[in-house]
Amino acid sequence: MGDLEVRPAAADDLPAIVAMLADDPLGAQRESPDDLTPYLTALERLNNDPHQHVVVAVREGRVVGTLQLTIVPGLARKGATRAIIEAVRVHADERGSGLGTHFLEWALDRARSEGCQLVQLTSDATRTDAHRFYERLGFEASHVGFKLRL
Amino acid sequence: MGDLEVRPAAADDLPAIVAMLADDPLGAQRESPDDLTPYLTALERLNNDPHQHVVVAVREGRVVGTLQLTIVPGLARKGATRAIIEAVRVHADERGSGLGTHFLEWALDRARSEGCQLVQLTSDATRTDAHRFYERLGFEASHVGFKLRL
Repeated sequence: MGDLEVRPAAADDLPAIVAMLADDPLGAQRESPDDLTPYLTALERLNNDPHQHVVVAVREGRVVGTLQLTIVPGLARKGATRAIIEAVRVHADERGSGLGTHFLEWALDRARSEGCQLVQLTSDATRTDAHRFYERLGFEASHVGFKLRL
Repeated sequence: MGDLEVRPAAADDLPAIVAMLADDPLGAQRESPDDLTPYLTALERLNNDPHQHVVVAVREGRVVGTLQLTIVPGLARKGATRAIIEAVRVHADERGSGLGTHFLEWALDRARSEGCQLVQLTSDATRTDAHRFYERLGFEASHVGFKLRL
């Protein structure tokens, strides 16, 4: 894992990012890799928000992972700040290589350095491999995640 | 429900808000109603962030509910913006009155008006009454919520 670099996502990374978002049974129905316009608009908005960190993991010059870390201050737990991780993807070629673990550990370190006391994420109930992965990292499956499409 | 008002939380609301956060078996261990200092610091930070909406529900001049709505842009789902709801509390005296439903519907409307396509929240696995409440509102328990304390 020596040369794994994690850096903010740039417009040039979007083809690789969107390809990863689309590369699974859930994502394939939701994404539009042939039209990057909506992603570019969203990335500009994200990169202008100091509480948002959309990053890529790069190995040997190739984008092999992406995730979004959002810093969320709050009142509960004596005014604790939490980090929410969304849209974690690791390229299919790199799964099982330990890259996911290093990448998530980077995110936990970043959350710590931003003063977060808690990190949280939700994972689709069908992604049982992902659940084991998060539990190995120390996450507890303590909550039920509810979603509503508007 | 005629006179239910929802408005941004102010420093003067903190005693009522923190009392509600502390008024359940989980919250009682986590909060410090006798020392509001950390909450005041957090509220100032929250109220300076345009993506954060900490609100109170007020009936007949009394704070009877609180929640936090966070607007989170993202790349996934063609650059969809989502709203995350945290720290929902309704005063014990008001439960079963329909106030929770009206309050959450306010939050869904607000999320819509901020351009969100998705609303999500997590609820502790032990809060089964809350789960039924969210399902009645149209939420789907599609995800597992993971948390890690740093």
